[in-house]
Amino acid sequence: MHEFDLIAVIRDRCAVAREDVRLGIGDDAALLAMPAGHILAVSTDTLVAGVHFPKSTRAFDIGWKSLAVNLSDLAAMGATPAWATLALTLPDADAQWVGQFADGFAALAGEFKLALVGGDTTQGPLNITVTVHGFVPDGAALLRSGARAGDGVYVTGTLGDAAAGLRILAQGEGTPGNDRSTTSRAILIERLDRPTPRVAQGLALRGRASACIDISDGLVADLGHICAASGVAAEIDAESLPASSALFGLCDAPTRHALQLAGGDDYELCFTAADAEAPSLLGDLARGGCGATRVGRIVAGHGVNIRDAGGNPVAVKQPGWEHFR
Amino acid sequence: MHEFDLIAVIRDRCAVAREDVRLGIGDDAALLAMPAGHILAVSTDTLVAGVHFPKSTRAFDIGWKSLAVNLSDLAAMGATPAWATLALTLPDADAQWVGQFADGFAALAGEFKLALVGGDTTQGPLNITVTVHGFVPDGAALLRSGARAGDGVYVTGTLGDAAAGLRILAQGEGTPGNDRSTTSRAILIERLDRPTPRVAQGLALRGRASACIDISDGLVADLGHICAASGVAAEIDAESLPASSALFGLCDAPTRHALQLAGGDDYELCFTAADAEAPSLLGDLARGGCGATRVGRIVAGHGVNIRDAGGNPVAVKQPGWEHFR
Repeated sequence: MHEFDLIAVIRDRCAVAREDVRLGIGDDAALLAMPAGHILAVSTDTLVAGVHFPKSTRAFDIGWKSLAVNLSDLAAMGATPAWATLALTLPDADAQWVGQFADGFAALAGEFKLALVGGDTTQGPLNITVTVHGFVPDGAALLRSGARAGDGVYVTGTLGDAAAGLRILAQGEGTPGNDRSTTSRAILIERLDRPTPRVAQGLALRGRASACIDISDGLVADLGHICAASGVAAEIDAESLPASSALFGLCDAPTRHALQLAGGDDYELCFTAADAEAPSLLGDLARGGCGATRVGRIVAGHGVNIRDAGGNPVAVKQPGWEHFR
Repeated sequence: MHEFDLIAVIRDRCAVAREDVRLGIGDDAALLAMPAGHILAVSTDTLVAGVHFPKSTRAFDIGWKSLAVNLSDLAAMGATPAWATLALTLPDADAQWVGQFADGFAALAGEFKLALVGGDTTQGPLNITVTVHGFVPDGAALLRSGARAGDGVYVTGTLGDAAAGLRILAQGEGTPGNDRSTTSRAILIERLDRPTPRVAQGLALRGRASACIDISDGLVADLGHICAASGVAAEIDAESLPASSALFGLCDAPTRHALQLAGGDDYELCFTAADAEAPSLLGDLARGGCGATRVGRIVAGHGVNIRDAGGNPVAVKQPGWEHFR
């Protein structure tokens, strides 16, 4: 199979028409028009088989996730997604695999009216790099650096599901369980394979959150980046961390806390906001279909400290996801 | 070694200050300001070890080439380089290798005042994906689709050098030769390892060339893209193809023609222009330090046909570089 056929397979399934795409796939570069008064937000993330997803992951889910993790970065800036490029390195030109991959990518791209405007397909060990582009009104971007002592710390959705899904996959198919636990397991694996980028939530936070980041490496690690960039510390109440009912049903509190604090791949937003902003902001998020939960507060100092219900320190068992260990 | 240290190594060596970079490396996305009246040109290219460069290639040269092949795409659009992101997948966190890689990347980035604004480092088989961003005044981009019957076909610089360099490397160290051939071999290998993106030449072509492409897969393959996009054919005179003196000295005419017509990795520009434009354009390019040579003409029809000095058809021995064979 020929490289150009692969590009056609992907392009044809990602046909999102946008007036600001003056020239899409097919020349040496895409030509793109920026809206006046806006700033371009650009982020890039790579997925490697066996590192960022299990080798057994379906092609559709790999396509979905490769875009989702990038859209999550735009969400954390409060940016509106617009365009993406896709660099796809494949061990062989498997048209069926590429078609399913493209379907997964396109499903999410279509949801956000994002246009695939360029790419490169090469032969080698599986490697997927997506670069996304979005818009944010000048001066309105959410940064990591704006948290202030006294702000509340919030997270969207629930934490720890994806890390639990990964643990379930590692245990293998033969794990005993009843119907209810089977359903819970499927929900958690789905959260691992098809994360939901919180784009609408990021837009709702503009002008109201003081700092924001997406949780890809685990709450403690990523909230730590907000603290470092803002020159503050955070105190987290472990009992307040939001958990899905699927996660509640499958593990005890210490395991759940470890997954919620240090498990990667949540792709929820962690943000800080002044108390005066919180009520209307939380109301808007809840009405938008993905509520947020207060999990702690910003204080003077540095680092992230976790307490249990009795006020005792909780140790983080796995300090986030680090790529070179 | 920790991922964040790797990013710091690269960022610190690529410190190009630009006022339009509102926020560089260090948040979830870069924030970038577009100049008014301009269109954004975006391109992405991946390099894989053993496919796009020999596994013996030095880290400095890999860093250089990973940016050069992307800048070459911007050059082919007539765009001014501005920003890049770098997705680097490495088998291990070798600080020395990363430092040398970053030096090569930074040497070329500095030359074009291009800022590295984001990236991702991951662990896995070596894979380098760069996404470049440039500006072009609205309506001024060079496209593949504007060639018209009667236009001349031109190429910048010389052709076939990089493909000859690759052949020399494949022959190995023990090839006999005198001092002169040793020097020629080094020149050709340098052309393979450190291609020169023809950015200034692309800018000079704006408003004057009717179509343009960069030659990455070989002249016949890439000129074929211009012909397909423009709905025309091209006739090439094999004897007119520009060759470096290094290449002239090392092979006979049929081998030289094969390298010039079908060898990849030239990263010269191939463009078409009306005869009325040619004299002043060629003069400007020559004064700019990299002249262009007329190698044929555009005619009605489709495909690319090559003739020797006697007017006889020349067969292309290797139809460009195709990734999945």
